[in-house]
Amino acid sequence: MSTRRMMVVGAHSADFVWRAAGAVACHTAAGGEAVVVALSYGERGESGKLWEEPGQTEENVKRIRHAEAEKAAGAVGARFEALDLGDYPLRVGPESVDRLAEMMRDFAPNVVLTHPKEDPFNPDHPAAHAAVAQARLLTSGAGVASGFRTAPPSEFLTFEPHQPELCNFTPTVYVDITPVYESKVEAMAAMQAQEYLREYYGQRADQRGNHARKVTGDSGIRQAEAFERLLPNVVTSL
Amino acid sequence: MSTRRMMVVGAHSADFVWRAAGAVACHTAAGGEAVVVALSYGERGESGKLWEEPGQTEENVKRIRHAEAEKAAGAVGARFEALDLGDYPLRVGPESVDRLAEMMRDFAPNVVLTHPKEDPFNPDHPAAHAAVAQARLLTSGAGVASGFRTAPPSEFLTFEPHQPELCNFTPTVYVDITPVYESKVEAMAAMQAQEYLREYYGQRADQRGNHARKVTGDSGIRQAEAFERLLPNVVTSL
Amino acid sequence: MSTRRMMVVGAHSADFVWRAAGAVACHTAAGGEAVVVALSYGERGESGKLWEEPGQTEENVKRIRHAEAEKAAGAVGARFEALDLGDYPLRVGPESVDRLAEMMRDFAPNVVLTHPKEDPFNPDHPAAHAAVAQARLLTSGAGVASGFRTAPPSEFLTFEPHQPELCNFTPTVYVDITPVYESKVEAMAAMQAQEYLREYYGQRADQRGNHARKVTGDSGIRQAEAFERLLPNVVTSL
Amino acid sequence: MSTRRMMVVGAHSADFVWRAAGAVACHTAAGGEAVVVALSYGERGESGKLWEEPGQTEENVKRIRHAEAEKAAGAVGARFEALDLGDYPLRVGPESVDRLAEMMRDFAPNVVLTHPKEDPFNPDHPAAHAAVAQARLLTSGAGVASGFRTAPPSEFLTFEPHQPELCNFTPTVYVDITPVYESKVEAMAAMQAQEYLREYYGQRADQRGNHARKVTGDSGIRQAEAFERLLPNVVTSL
Amino acid sequence: MSTRRMMVVGAHSADFVWRAAGAVACHTAAGGEAVVVALSYGERGESGKLWEEPGQTEENVKRIRHAEAEKAAGAVGARFEALDLGDYPLRVGPESVDRLAEMMRDFAPNVVLTHPKEDPFNPDHPAAHAAVAQARLLTSGAGVASGFRTAPPSEFLTFEPHQPELCNFTPTVYVDITPVYESKVEAMAAMQAQEYLREYYGQRADQRGNHARKVTGDSGIRQAEAFERLLPNVVTSL
Amino acid sequence: MSTRRMMVVGAHSADFVWRAAGAVACHTAAGGEAVVVALSYGERGESGKLWEEPGQTEENVKRIRHAEAEKAAGAVGARFEALDLGDYPLRVGPESVDRLAEMMRDFAPNVVLTHPKEDPFNPDHPAAHAAVAQARLLTSGAGVASGFRTAPPSEFLTFEPHQPELCNFTPTVYVDITPVYESKVEAMAAMQAQEYLREYYGQRADQRGNHARKVTGDSGIRQAEAFERLLPNVVTSL
Repeated sequence: MSTRRMMVVGAHSADFVWRAAGAVACHTAAGGEAVVVALSYGERGESGKLWEEPGQTEENVKRIRHAEAEKAAGAVGARFEALDLGDYPLRVGPESVDRLAEMMRDFAPNVVLTHPKEDPFNPDHPAAHAAVAQARLLTSGAGVASGFRTAPPSEFLTFEPHQPELCNFTPTVYVDITPVYESKVEAMAAMQAQEYLREYYGQRADQRGNHARKVTGDSGIRQAEAFERLLPNVVTSL
Repeated sequence: MSTRRMMVVGAHSADFVWRAAGAVACHTAAGGEAVVVALSYGERGESGKLWEEPGQTEENVKRIRHAEAEKAAGAVGARFEALDLGDYPLRVGPESVDRLAEMMRDFAPNVVLTHPKEDPFNPDHPAAHAAVAQARLLTSGAGVASGFRTAPPSEFLTFEPHQPELCNFTPTVYVDITPVYESKVEAMAAMQAQEYLREYYGQRADQRGNHARKVTGDSGIRQAEAFERLLPNVVTSL
Repeated sequence: MSTRRMMVVGAHSADFVWRAAGAVACHTAAGGEAVVVALSYGERGESGKLWEEPGQTEENVKRIRHAEAEKAAGAVGARFEALDLGDYPLRVGPESVDRLAEMMRDFAPNVVLTHPKEDPFNPDHPAAHAAVAQARLLTSGAGVASGFRTAPPSEFLTFEPHQPELCNFTPTVYVDITPVYESKVEAMAAMQAQEYLREYYGQRADQRGNHARKVTGDSGIRQAEAFERLLPNVVTSL
Repeated sequence: MSTRRMMVVGAHSADFVWRAAGAVACHTAAGGEAVVVALSYGERGESGKLWEEPGQTEENVKRIRHAEAEKAAGAVGARFEALDLGDYPLRVGPESVDRLAEMMRDFAPNVVLTHPKEDPFNPDHPAAHAAVAQARLLTSGAGVASGFRTAPPSEFLTFEPHQPELCNFTPTVYVDITPVYESKVEAMAAMQAQEYLREYYGQRADQRGNHARKVTGDSGIRQAEAFERLLPNVVTSL
Repeated sequence: MSTRRMMVVGAHSADFVWRAAGAVACHTAAGGEAVVVALSYGERGESGKLWEEPGQTEENVKRIRHAEAEKAAGAVGARFEALDLGDYPLRVGPESVDRLAEMMRDFAPNVVLTHPKEDPFNPDHPAAHAAVAQARLLTSGAGVASGFRTAPPSEFLTFEPHQPELCNFTPTVYVDITPVYESKVEAMAAMQAQEYLREYYGQRADQRGNHARKVTGDSGIRQAEAFERLLPNVVTSL
Repeated sequence: MSTRRMMVVGAHSADFVWRAAGAVACHTAAGGEAVVVALSYGERGESGKLWEEPGQTEENVKRIRHAEAEKAAGAVGARFEALDLGDYPLRVGPESVDRLAEMMRDFAPNVVLTHPKEDPFNPDHPAAHAAVAQARLLTSGAGVASGFRTAPPSEFLTFEPHQPELCNFTPTVYVDITPVYESKVEAMAAMQAQEYLREYYGQRADQRGNHARKVTGDSGIRQAEAFERLLPNVVTSL
């Protein structure tokens, strides 16, 4: 029974669903604990369908997006927290970085997942990455005794962006999500404002499943998610 | 009890000792099987001390190098095989690549370790890398049924070169070799012709141990070895 | 009415179908001329299904693969030529490079398409790339009067490999293949030995279509193919 | 007759002249509309000659620089706008980014040109790049319906910096400016405060002309400008 | 007798000791002048041992760290200045960048050393790099007459980070510190709060000494330090 | 008075003139010894003008090219040697690599200059690079006593290719060739078959002179040549 803790930080409340819900489900299915943190609700930039409704308000969009993300997180066994920092643009000030670092010190994650450093199609994803990377370092300090409260360093990975090659995203590890794929489908179904992404990310799961089969020869893999480790991990044998 | 099989291929008979003996020892200590393949004995370029003896012959140098490598491999629980293709320069022709592929089809390794693709300080290391990479692909085919005998695709990693940054070597995984470090020391002691490298690679083990401590916060790690995965691996959870 | 000439060179007879058949169809639909050159039939490594038949022979496999490729090429309006150099491994000697250069001098292509330079999953694709790159340079010389017959320099692009990020493939141009997509489907249908790839590359066409929509805002695009220009092109305005 | 709109954004009022005036002239000669936006006048860092005059004031320098840039823009058929944000250092705050995004939403450019992301010789060029990249993304949103006004995504290219290799600038497209070269010469002549750059960028036009000849074999090209596409473009055939 | 001036800027008061004290000592031994600038004292993140003392205060930690750094600087012949901007996180505002630029204009260094641009293990090192790079450009202007006081452009190098490959640090020049190594040992001994680093950086000096011997064949080199030039230098012959 | 020895190896007999003649002249003017080695005469690919003469023969072209190169080398104080291995394509077999290594063992150069590793416009330049890199490593061995004759490791740099950015050429050192520029002009004048390159490379010398002024602030520099160090050099102070 795993006792590992995973934190997934997205710029917008739905980001974790498409790119990491399978890995979250694998993690919690194995007994681990997971929290999803949304820096914003994507209320302006990624909720177009909701804005088509006459009389729509920003508060109502946020309320709906919160409920959807909570439901999606629940589908993969995770808790959901929102910082509501605003989107398009997401601008994460020093105090929000410090707040995120405090959350990390409290939760002490073994593994942190977020967006890649670059994304020429989205102004908020790199802002989220920078905030998470900074908070993570402020959480652990220099790996020696410090003059402030710390938590141990976490593994740090990025999940797959929408156009991987143009974000310099190179997969270094595939998670076989075949056993939990139904949970991911359920999580995706919860994001009603972005149903056009379900087919797209369903195809991605198939594609990465194909890649994971290719690299292992294991024909039992059907779906997978791709991640890039930003730092070496430590193992007891290869 | 692991049933994994590891193959380590070096350009010269001693290469595996300095860079991967710890990982081999961890592997065999866990129950895995390991074979070390030396493409040459390093008889011309890396046996300088032996050539200082009057009347030395190439055959005698090879004989001594074979015995040393066998002893070092034994110290970490591995079998040693030599292809004796000549060094400085090592030139691996098509038939030797095919022979290596046959060895891989027979042994069906789960993991293959070799030199990085580039090394501006050594003409033979890149030649070894190219041969291993080619043989590995000929072993597994395209991951579909083929018109020739295949073995499943293996994990593929490079071990640390002498001047890592100048070989574009970026560690992606550290193996904690603390529990088996005495075996690596013993393996290094077997290479009498290159005793000047013992201190150097002893310091490397300390340095990578420091890095592995930093990245995990685990103060119990004393020595480590660094590797770079060339292909994603597949895991069931992060 | 275009008078441009396109040459597509693949390591195996089916390679052009999955990655470039749409671009070929666009080219010929616009009035251009296209030739597909296969360095081998992929008879050993990519014809697994055919080898399942009892009593199968290499000659028969090649015969079937030739017919399939010819049919697929025809479906997108191209001529098919095969060099039959053998696969797994494909080893392109100097004389075959020279032969390819002669074909280029005769055909004088305006644009040449082939595999990317790197592919850690396939030994033959990089060999094909190297041969094409070399032949292309021998075709055009140094861009000045030469002591041998030349043809003008061609545009040079690579088509999408199976695992793009791991081949360092970065799309620099998308071809909107929506108007000709049925021809590509027909070409894919011709490759009976590799039907498992139809769904995979169908999804790729959708994915790249999505990317092409994203980058232009043009909702009329449904399918696309991705290419990477290896050299600048020259335009009269941006 | 082209109906495309081009926006060129420079850190300083003269930047567009040296690196992109030819492309602007080609664009407007083809019937397109062009606007040049200067984030600052380069009044402190790039107007040395003007400061040699006794009694010179910042306001007067700006006045002269505005007139020169307007004249240069006019020579290549473009409109000139200045944001006057100050130089050395240029610091573009969030409100200026938003203002630039508003200008983009109003103008709805098909193509945007600016400085490369890196320039180890100039503190203002990367600041300009970051602001333009951010504004461009805020302009178009995520490519789906948004809760704010958007304009379609534009093509995004960087123009040539002073020391290309040290700015990681790799040309991906050359514009043949031979037919409009006299306009560029006229635009360069308007920048009296930097006449030392005329010979330098005249030579650059020759050099890139040589490169464009080499890559096409078209001996009619005399002058060219080099650009790097940051995102794939979409074409109907290669 | 050298009249060159060297400025070393570290995020924390001890940074220069481990990575550049040898180069400073060589510089001053040759007659050059050197100043070490510390942006912070590393009082929170790198003074763990001092915080173990009961009743410790931030002011006292800073006092001790100042004295230690002054002593270490003195051991290698340099002056020490501290900006006391705070650490973990170090946030260098525009006014501090301007202050650093003023110090550079006053001192007019021929060579500036600082941290690499990236460091995934330390939040303050990249902040220091960015500030120094920015200040350095504001110091020299565009290399032409300017509307503000300037100093000539300096050579710009980064010193070795703790985990070089993960910071994209590639050595481009080794300084042979054999003749001054005792001064570096003395400087390291002055940093009592970080004695655990002495052995680590002692091993680094040996390792880089080995690399410097390898690249020259000069067996007289015992210890070296590694640096990466960020800009070309100019020589009168190779 | 320098006693350093420089070896410049070009694919074709004229290559050294355009890219390195200034550095050679600086070297010999300082008292150093220099040898230029041409792997081929460029008789097929770079002697177009000579082939325009009716009745021209390959032998005659080679004779003329030998004389021109000898004259150019003499103009900058160097000796000229030709291996006459053929061009377009230049194919350097193992025995020619060994021959080049023998030349290096005999001459024991302190510095070796050649083409960059990549050149998408020329098939022979990368072939020359590979041969020189291989020969250089076979010359020096592993930096320890060897079973064969060795010479000490040399500094290793590449000279500027025709389209630098497309060859991944990044200058790391500029040689100020102002004092010897007349010799370079004389050397260029000797290459009558390629007079179209004189203006081009004259402009390059101006451009690199501009860059060298920018990076130093030294207004006395008029012409320069750019080189990229492939390996760190060792200095006694920065």
